Amino acid sequence: MEVAFRPSHADATYQAKYGIQASSGGGRASARETIGRVAAGAIAKQLLAKAHGTEVLAWVRRIHTIEADIDPASVSLEAIERTIVRCPDPEVAEQMIARIEAIGREGDSCGGVIECLVRRPPVGLGMPVFDKLEADLAKALMSLPATKGFEIGSGFGGTLLMGSEHNDAFLPSEDGRLRTATNNSGGIQGGISNGEVIQLKVAFKPTATIRKAQATITASGAATTLAAKGRHDPCVLPRAVPMVEAMVALVLADHLLRQQAQCSLW
Amino acid sequence: MEVAFRPSHADATYQAKYGIQASSGGGRASARETIGRVAAGAIAKQLLAKAHGTEVLAWVRRIHTIEADIDPASVSLEAIERTIVRCPDPEVAEQMIARIEAIGREGDSCGGVIECLVRRPPVGLGMPVFDKLEADLAKALMSLPATKGFEIGSGFGGTLLMGSEHNDAFLPSEDGRLRTATNNSGGIQGGISNGEVIQLKVAFKPTATIRKAQATITASGAATTLAAKGRHDPCVLPRAVPMVEAMVALVLADHLLRQQAQCSLW
Amino acid sequence: MEVAFRPSHADATYQAKYGIQASSGGGRASARETIGRVAAGAIAKQLLAKAHGTEVLAWVRRIHTIEADIDPASVSLEAIERTIVRCPDPEVAEQMIARIEAIGREGDSCGGVIECLVRRPPVGLGMPVFDKLEADLAKALMSLPATKGFEIGSGFGGTLLMGSEHNDAFLPSEDGRLRTATNNSGGIQGGISNGEVIQLKVAFKPTATIRKAQATITASGAATTLAAKGRHDPCVLPRAVPMVEAMVALVLADHLLRQQAQCSLW
Amino acid sequence: MEVAFRPSHADATYQAKYGIQASSGGGRASARETIGRVAAGAIAKQLLAKAHGTEVLAWVRRIHTIEADIDPASVSLEAIERTIVRCPDPEVAEQMIARIEAIGREGDSCGGVIECLVRRPPVGLGMPVFDKLEADLAKALMSLPATKGFEIGSGFGGTLLMGSEHNDAFLPSEDGRLRTATNNSGGIQGGISNGEVIQLKVAFKPTATIRKAQATITASGAATTLAAKGRHDPCVLPRAVPMVEAMVALVLADHLLRQQAQCSLW
Repeated sequence: MEVAFRPSHADATYQAKYGIQASSGGGRASARETIGRVAAGAIAKQLLAKAHGTEVLAWVRRIHTIEADIDPASVSLEAIERTIVRCPDPEVAEQMIARIEAIGREGDSCGGVIECLVRRPPVGLGMPVFDKLEADLAKALMSLPATKGFEIGSGFGGTLLMGSEHNDAFLPSEDGRLRTATNNSGGIQGGISNGEVIQLKVAFKPTATIRKAQATITASGAATTLAAKGRHDPCVLPRAVPMVEAMVALVLADHLLRQQAQCSLW
Repeated sequence: MEVAFRPSHADATYQAKYGIQASSGGGRASARETIGRVAAGAIAKQLLAKAHGTEVLAWVRRIHTIEADIDPASVSLEAIERTIVRCPDPEVAEQMIARIEAIGREGDSCGGVIECLVRRPPVGLGMPVFDKLEADLAKALMSLPATKGFEIGSGFGGTLLMGSEHNDAFLPSEDGRLRTATNNSGGIQGGISNGEVIQLKVAFKPTATIRKAQATITASGAATTLAAKGRHDPCVLPRAVPMVEAMVALVLADHLLRQQAQCSLW
Repeated sequence: MEVAFRPSHADATYQAKYGIQASSGGGRASARETIGRVAAGAIAKQLLAKAHGTEVLAWVRRIHTIEADIDPASVSLEAIERTIVRCPDPEVAEQMIARIEAIGREGDSCGGVIECLVRRPPVGLGMPVFDKLEADLAKALMSLPATKGFEIGSGFGGTLLMGSEHNDAFLPSEDGRLRTATNNSGGIQGGISNGEVIQLKVAFKPTATIRKAQATITASGAATTLAAKGRHDPCVLPRAVPMVEAMVALVLADHLLRQQAQCSLW
Repeated sequence: MEVAFRPSHADATYQAKYGIQASSGGGRASARETIGRVAAGAIAKQLLAKAHGTEVLAWVRRIHTIEADIDPASVSLEAIERTIVRCPDPEVAEQMIARIEAIGREGDSCGGVIECLVRRPPVGLGMPVFDKLEADLAKALMSLPATKGFEIGSGFGGTLLMGSEHNDAFLPSEDGRLRTATNNSGGIQGGISNGEVIQLKVAFKPTATIRKAQATITASGAATTLAAKGRHDPCVLPRAVPMVEAMVALVLADHLLRQQAQCSLW
């Protein structure tokens, strides 16, 4: 029996590019691939913590239409890990879980937004032109499966402000440390970390694998329909939280080593 | 007289990283730096056009709160270049120009969103894991000055859909060419182009340089205020359109060469 | 008991760089590491053979003072693999084997020279400035353990000729194919393959591990003596032949892909 | 009139690869290209000197058959620069100059060997597997025009020694600094610098451009003869000395930054 391409999966593009595709499970396109990233990220986190006391935390900010507005100053790993949905607001978390279960029962799926912050980042990370810190973060996060968007600091919403509202005023300091009154920059200015909390958001699309029947084609182009069987996750976000943290930690660790090479010889 | 750090510029982070900063004009942080990208992008566009008839087009979709909903099927370079604001809808363009002028008169600035599409892209561009096509596009675009966000296909808005709404059904075809009924994927699935139009959006923050007085600090940390003098662009978007096209063309040309190396030996 | 650094091994430099070293067997400095290179090289050889009928052959040219002058036109894999020492001249091979055994009985070791040729290489491989083909070959081969020298074409001996003797006259051809009367260039001119046989030589030092007692120091700098126990190869060259072939094949395959990308779009 | 390919130049391979060639002067294949390397190398030398008191010195060791055996311990920049041929032994230098002039008068050319040493190199530079320090040095030097061979430490000559003669015994030290009784390793063991003087040699072929008539072909393959006119250097070695120093300094500076990144975070 001829294979049917699963809509919005990598099946068809892999077939077009390589002439083959994984017969099951998505092969390299499976999110299982990220296990190596998460393992490496765990080491990067330790390196960042030891070198600068840096902490990387991510959580689920929105599931479908249910959004939690989390205070970056008080969010903790403990609060994030308290619920299975990895949203640190317990009431919103409950609503998210209910929504995911309801959508799953219909054989459908949903997406959402993961937010991530970096506390006590080293100052000076990032390069001025092509390897800007936000550029490397964007690539790292958009290389995760199912991602559709990336925001640093104020993101798309910041484009509705005027310059006088958006600019982050520098606060006087006695130790020369940079501090800003607001943080629309998301901790990065001119491609380089300024020491404020790094803040970013990542959009994850609804899971492509659903039990509902969908129109698609076979490898030879003939029309068919397809409905996934078995257990499928109606929402990837809770499990993507550690992936986001890992990718952010890896980018920061890379740039920390580059900074060490470039700016600490004497 | 001691230099004052311009808020939300690269002055302070350059000083922190390098111990120096450009005394005027922003140095490497100036958007003047992108002239080399635009020049290289012009060659990349010719290469893409000659090899595959590929066309890259960008335009201003939103200025501050004024948005144009452009039909990707009919937008043309001619329509984009007809107005100075590079928005192909002439009525909306007029409102955008008026808004920019009004904000400029107040000594303030504004941002917005640039949209970009790629017609007739080669199928198969992109790598399955780290160098996914959308990842390299995200890095390229987030390396442009003043960018705060990136979206491919449905972007953040797509996270409000359910899987059954978001998935792009494959259409039957006689020539084996992939075609989808919708294009929430933005022309990329599993990190690899599927031949549909590639669609992306980029958020640009309001220009950091404004004539209005702002609170800031000197290099030694003392409080001061700063107001830019002279002519300053209250909105960078119209001039960022060619930069966006250039970066997209460069990423596609790179991946076209990689595809040629990897998948065309025999 | 404190570890003694083995002379001319990686023990001491690993300790200095990393603060640790493999407690036995040399760790990453062991030639066992090359198994991955040889495996990858086997695939590269198949790719080169399929794409261009290219053949990569290496053999032992010299062991200690015993040298074989092999005719590149007639050497074959079969002749190379006929003896355990991988020298295609059976009489010289016998002498080599006797020399290695004699030196081994004394608890000592010896080195020598491996020669390699590439038949029917693609024309045009290599970049004009930094990634010249001979430069990448040199790096690849000098990254093998125990290598001390690299020659392309005429090598060090060619420096004793005058220009009129060394230059390779081009021969008239009807098909436009480049052919030269001599091949002092070793198949590469201006960093780029000209289609003639690529010829190179690699020097391998005598095995550092010997059973004879040697003066050395412990990790804390105290004088001691060291004599290896157990079975140790008194000569690495026969087993380095597949490593040389593998590295050459990998470099050529890489450059074939780059050539395909750069010069075959239309 | 159709262009004739200059024997052993890049003309023919550039034509084969790119379909064009520089109409005069060799284009990118000209040694003029190395001016950027020498300029960058001058900065790398300052960085190495400031960071570690490292000194890089190269000189002409052999011209055609005339060889100078220079004591690495006493050679100085002043002695090297005293003669136009950049050989620090004044008597041998005179013979070299006479040889070059005699060969030049015949319309012919000659090659030779440049030797280079690095005093007080940082310990620990180099990577254990692919980016071994000698591998990166080999690539850097074999990317210079006209190079045919590279040796680190004992080089090809070292293959005539037995292991017990070749191994560098470690000397007792009170400060833990590595020191060896001999230096056949050329300052690098296991791909990593051990702090002893780094020593290497590079073979340069006789200049390809000569006034003597040579057999060659035109771009369409027809037989012709060619004799260079005008002033041509009958020997490139004296002018290649700064190129060798520059490439060595650049490789060491790169590895110093990598070492700083990898081994100095805490």
